[in-house]
Amino acid sequence: QGILERLDAGEIVIGDGGFVFALEKRGYVKAGPWTPEATVEHPEAVRQLHREFLRAGSNVLQTFTFYASEDKLENRGNYVAEKISCQKVNEAACDIAREVANEGDALVAGGVSQTPSYLSCKDKSEVKAAFQKQLEVFMKKNVDFLIAEYFEHVEEAVWAVEVLKESGKPVAATMCIGPEGDMHGVPPGQCAVQLVKAGASIVGVNCHFDPETSIETVRLMKEGLQAAKLKAHLMCQPLAFHTPDCGKQGFIDLPEFPFGLEPRIATRWDIQKYARKAYDLGIRYIGGCCGFEPYHIRAIAEELGPERGFLPEASEKHGSWGDNLSMHTKPWVRARARKEYWENLKPASGRPYCPCMSKPDGWGVTKGAKELMQQKEATTEQQLKELFQKKK
Amino acid sequence: QGILERLDAGEIVIGDGGFVFALEKRGYVKAGPWTPEATVEHPEAVRQLHREFLRAGSNVLQTFTFYASEDKLENRGNYVAEKISCQKVNEAACDIAREVANEGDALVAGGVSQTPSYLSCKDKSEVKAAFQKQLEVFMKKNVDFLIAEYFEHVEEAVWAVEVLKESGKPVAATMCIGPEGDMHGVPPGQCAVQLVKAGASIVGVNCHFDPETSIETVRLMKEGLQAAKLKAHLMCQPLAFHTPDCGKQGFIDLPEFPFGLEPRIATRWDIQKYARKAYDLGIRYIGGCCGFEPYHIRAIAEELGPERGFLPEASEKHGSWGDNLSMHTKPWVRARARKEYWENLKPASGRPYCPCMSKPDGWGVTKGAKELMQQKEATTEQQLKELFQKKK
Amino acid sequence: QGILERLDAGEIVIGDGGFVFALEKRGYVKAGPWTPEATVEHPEAVRQLHREFLRAGSNVLQTFTFYASEDKLENRGNYVAEKISCQKVNEAACDIAREVANEGDALVAGGVSQTPSYLSCKDKSEVKAAFQKQLEVFMKKNVDFLIAEYFEHVEEAVWAVEVLKESGKPVAATMCIGPEGDMHGVPPGQCAVQLVKAGASIVGVNCHFDPETSIETVRLMKEGLQAAKLKAHLMCQPLAFHTPDCGKQGFIDLPEFPFGLEPRIATRWDIQKYARKAYDLGIRYIGGCCGFEPYHIRAIAEELGPERGFLPEASEKHGSWGDNLSMHTKPWVRARARKEYWENLKPASGRPYCPCMSKPDGWGVTKGAKELMQQKEATTEQQLKELFQKKK
Amino acid sequence: QGILERLDAGEIVIGDGGFVFALEKRGYVKAGPWTPEATVEHPEAVRQLHREFLRAGSNVLQTFTFYASEDKLENRGNYVAEKISCQKVNEAACDIAREVANEGDALVAGGVSQTPSYLSCKDKSEVKAAFQKQLEVFMKKNVDFLIAEYFEHVEEAVWAVEVLKESGKPVAATMCIGPEGDMHGVPPGQCAVQLVKAGASIVGVNCHFDPETSIETVRLMKEGLQAAKLKAHLMCQPLAFHTPDCGKQGFIDLPEFPFGLEPRIATRWDIQKYARKAYDLGIRYIGGCCGFEPYHIRAIAEELGPERGFLPEASEKHGSWGDNLSMHTKPWVRARARKEYWENLKPASGRPYCPCMSKPDGWGVTKGAKELMQQKEATTEQQLKELFQKKK
Repeated sequence: QGILERLDAGEIVIGDGGFVFALEKRGYVKAGPWTPEATVEHPEAVRQLHREFLRAGSNVLQTFTFYASEDKLENRGNYVAEKISCQKVNEAACDIAREVANEGDALVAGGVSQTPSYLSCKDKSEVKAAFQKQLEVFMKKNVDFLIAEYFEHVEEAVWAVEVLKESGKPVAATMCIGPEGDMHGVPPGQCAVQLVKAGASIVGVNCHFDPETSIETVRLMKEGLQAAKLKAHLMCQPLAFHTPDCGKQGFIDLPEFPFGLEPRIATRWDIQKYARKAYDLGIRYIGGCCGFEPYHIRAIAEELGPERGFLPEASEKHGSWGDNLSMHTKPWVRARARKEYWENLKPASGRPYCPCMSKPDGWGVTKGAKELMQQKEATTEQQLKELFQKKK
Repeated sequence: QGILERLDAGEIVIGDGGFVFALEKRGYVKAGPWTPEATVEHPEAVRQLHREFLRAGSNVLQTFTFYASEDKLENRGNYVAEKISCQKVNEAACDIAREVANEGDALVAGGVSQTPSYLSCKDKSEVKAAFQKQLEVFMKKNVDFLIAEYFEHVEEAVWAVEVLKESGKPVAATMCIGPEGDMHGVPPGQCAVQLVKAGASIVGVNCHFDPETSIETVRLMKEGLQAAKLKAHLMCQPLAFHTPDCGKQGFIDLPEFPFGLEPRIATRWDIQKYARKAYDLGIRYIGGCCGFEPYHIRAIAEELGPERGFLPEASEKHGSWGDNLSMHTKPWVRARARKEYWENLKPASGRPYCPCMSKPDGWGVTKGAKELMQQKEATTEQQLKELFQKKK
Repeated sequence: QGILERLDAGEIVIGDGGFVFALEKRGYVKAGPWTPEATVEHPEAVRQLHREFLRAGSNVLQTFTFYASEDKLENRGNYVAEKISCQKVNEAACDIAREVANEGDALVAGGVSQTPSYLSCKDKSEVKAAFQKQLEVFMKKNVDFLIAEYFEHVEEAVWAVEVLKESGKPVAATMCIGPEGDMHGVPPGQCAVQLVKAGASIVGVNCHFDPETSIETVRLMKEGLQAAKLKAHLMCQPLAFHTPDCGKQGFIDLPEFPFGLEPRIATRWDIQKYARKAYDLGIRYIGGCCGFEPYHIRAIAEELGPERGFLPEASEKHGSWGDNLSMHTKPWVRARARKEYWENLKPASGRPYCPCMSKPDGWGVTKGAKELMQQKEATTEQQLKELFQKKK
Repeated sequence: QGILERLDAGEIVIGDGGFVFALEKRGYVKAGPWTPEATVEHPEAVRQLHREFLRAGSNVLQTFTFYASEDKLENRGNYVAEKISCQKVNEAACDIAREVANEGDALVAGGVSQTPSYLSCKDKSEVKAAFQKQLEVFMKKNVDFLIAEYFEHVEEAVWAVEVLKESGKPVAATMCIGPEGDMHGVPPGQCAVQLVKAGASIVGVNCHFDPETSIETVRLMKEGLQAAKLKAHLMCQPLAFHTPDCGKQGFIDLPEFPFGLEPRIATRWDIQKYARKAYDLGIRYIGGCCGFEPYHIRAIAEELGPERGFLPEASEKHGSWGDNLSMHTKPWVRARARKEYWENLKPASGRPYCPCMSKPDGWGVTKGAKELMQQKEATTEQQLKELFQKKK
């Protein structure tokens, strides 16, 4: 069954997690460029990660084609050891995803994301051409549906949807925005309306913000669609990092991005709460982005197990709510084999010299965050000046 | 070249990371039992993790035979979907490790760990028989050297070393203890002396404590050996979690163990500091245990790159000290492409409702920790009583 | 010169600090009732606190008549050791304030605050009678001006202003509300408009929220007045506690209220920042409420010393920005004798087992906060709502 | 009854709190010099603070003669507005203390503290002459007993005891040291032995460390005395700040000293725990030093109320364990009128951008702390260098 058949029937569809962060930690993706040449260089690593997500419960395997438009690969080409063609990267991504999808009950989704062409103000036809080129691969490889994801500007996202829609395949579209809307100030509700009008059957957000914030953004999208009397399925694929202190551009402006985010990593219990809240809001395509590892995806599948009537394969190696601790030799560890224990745990950081929140860097942060910075001790500008002074 | 030739020549030997935690998150190991049946059930997953460690710079691939003694596998057998023989698990582990080691310049080490037989007070011959059984597989598969690791009691560790030593292969021995010594109160210095006298050429610690604490324990071992005029190489394979609040039994007694440890995960920069400090103390076998992912191992290899004269393969996808951020479009992200930035970052947890430290559970905790608990607000006994009352 | 002459001339007027909290810690006020019978029972303690505020720079001494309406004193009468008449309490408060005011250059302000009569839905005439009774004492004792403070409902505040206004003396009115407005949902801008229309020459907020939040509320009041083309002087007397986690009813709903607020106490440097921000917004009557001790008031006077051209008497015992440390024997303490040091210090709590924020108790808190409590750890929604509210 | 009669009879004697910190916040003492010229300049302020401690339960009023030796006053003379003679300061201190002591059931103790003469290596006779000069005033004013307090070196403390002992009055001696001992490395047990041998009837610690640490130091003193078969009463007057991160020289080396210590201030419940633990160790002279305000002293008296059979006068304004909240209108505030509530509260700091612990400055810090600094991110030396560089 296709993605729309599943969603139309009221099924919960579980997405997969974030490839660039997971593979960066495994040694196959370079932070900074974040390009997916690993599909050609190290297909076994990409394949294994797909398998882990499938096993954890993912119903969709996204082709690892993030930042795989030709302009992006060229732009970041100096980072890539050997020049690998855009087409090869995209084709390999499709092949690997399909191979693993066939091992289980999963759909393959071809994905496009925002382009340097748009950011450097190239015209519409040029931007669309980049998406068109990737789409040709997806059609040749016959993916099941298409996702336009990680767009900061709704204008570009609409262009992507328009291109993808021509294929006749179902199109999902997610933006990497928070409740304040896109980088031109278009609020989430209006973004959703424009995307649906352009042809997207599924809309939502991915990346840049933590689960709480992302759900709030999807809620605003839902309100916008209702006000416009439009219908679409809702989708959410947030970070697996706690980012209550983010500004408008999300976690990229946090001082810890990208190499010091560890203390912010969500526990599996955090993700179960996310899954429940997403479900309660009516979101039925529930997945993750950067920071989501296989065990986070499994947490979604376990939380929604009662609704779905089954557990994923990887739950063979996981007791619900710590149940596998019930036979531990120590009574105080056995006492942790309970839902109430993990639900209420406030995990310590082990870092008494570190704070709980940080101030986002950057001048492009939200007005609210900027006011906060001005109100509080250190403006980012000052911090930057100090950094640059130290550098000299 | 063998392990002793390398160490005798003054080389730095980089170990690998923790399999049970990494594979638990990937969906192949069950927390609680922590047994390695994945070597038979999902060899591709084990193989891939070995590969990532190799690529990250590991010079030793340990067979994934943790808790693979027959008594342990039987003891935890009810957790394992299909009964898989001890011999098959150990053989498969050897085969996979050797296959990957041959892809690069790595040694294979066969590992044994503490047994339920010892903990349930079986006699010496019975305990030794369990090690003997695993050793037979290691000899048949011709591993390069042997490691007795994760022992809480030096008595059992000595028995393990005695068994392994009969093989004629070099033996390393690490205990999962902190500066307060083993569970019978034998201080680290005496533990080291006993292990060397039993035949270990390399001694140190693994697991249970964070890098800081583990290095301190090895320092005490070094002092003990010096006082006894014994010589041995030093080895350290700590947790990649911050655990300044641990009691004598380490992270198991922390309320966050094992499903809420995320905020404690070390950054790559934390690990670079660890590698430097370990090196400065004279430790030359430097690796990791639970929580160590491939990027943590790479951090060791990068920190000690100048001393070793080369970087690991995975550094192709990693700029030293955030160097790969130097071409970012945002100036404040570019400002992070510096050693000083990451070295001095105090990463925020994003969790303002959570504390920085927690009180260990358990009655077996150290005198210091127990006093602390008595001094401070909540004794564990109280907490446990409350838990049990709630359960009723 | 009277209060309005000073403010009309552009002078900065410094208020005093909080009597009930300061005298509770000194042993003369009971938390819970918070009534001011100390004016009769221990006039020397009240006198000394007035003196300290005068010495610290206060230009206004408020009579210690908080919660001194007859209905309140009766209501809380069971807490008071000996029944002391309402009139005696109010008269003694006026006498003490005047005595100390005469020792320096300060005005005396008679103050009324919200009544149990209003909260228990007595009618307008009955509530006004309570204010009238206090006003009679203030007229007999000839205070310099009048303050209606600590009102949660603008309706009652307007009644109070109407009563006080009949005296012909200048009237200031401050509410204990945050940016979300009064307990009936009237936003701050409308509250300000109603108060000015009722006759208040000075409007603003006091108590319940930290300086940051209080300044934001006054900003909204200023906007409301501007929109209504009304003129009034602005006034701010916030808590000296950090309360970023407050709900609509302020610090009373925080779990730490009132006996565990210590870690939230503002430093003198926090207060200097507050004074500067209040000044920058155009607030010219700048004081404090609960938690403000004499050294906090001195911090206002020192921060605005350049604008005012003089320092308070108590600055004889205080070097600006830690200047008095410049002759310390230890170089690292000397290094603290600098503005940059104290301005940038992020003071540690010394409490590694405690969190940074807590969730407000209560059902009367904002919807956002309530959801937050239900969700437990989630911060984002409330923060976002706050941001949006600030934006509006 | 004299101090020794009381202690010999098994009574609990409650000390008073810290004058220099309390009066600094009230505007009468200058941080840095910390000298007590307020006894002459503003006797009413000193008198009022004495009264508050008396009312809170203090059985001893110490003359406010801290740092009142002639050499100290001269040394810090440039800070004092008008030159006030050493004799006048000391005499006024005695008169005020006696006046207030007569209002209740309290003893007056004349106090001496460490001298600049000793620190600048003057000889024994010169140092003793400074103490002798203060003693003459105490004898003339007929104080009830004598305290040698705040000594970092046991040698100087012994000299002080020798001088005071000649008076024939009982002598108490407390050092401002932690468990690592005095600045020359003499451990607490030996310090206690030397002080008792020199003639002290009561020994213990005051200032520099938090209650937990101070009790631990007294425990070591007790052990030292037991080992030497000496008898003496035990005394403890710690800080009312949480300082788990202190080095050997205590809170002076903390970055927050002295103007940013607010988040570390103990709650009344923290002090009740301290009182109980001190009592359980056998300490019978229980008071406080810097940071102790009257409500902290009352907390001692309330915690030990059952043992003593009475409560202090100030408890008329304080319900035991929040009892005064039991009639609050809000049910969630009423729910705080319970011992369990306040005992278990982990108070939030309201400061999400601040850490929980800080690294002490200074080169004179303890070995442990120094190692910690070397191990951890920032050495103080580096911090200082940066500070000095910025200064240039």
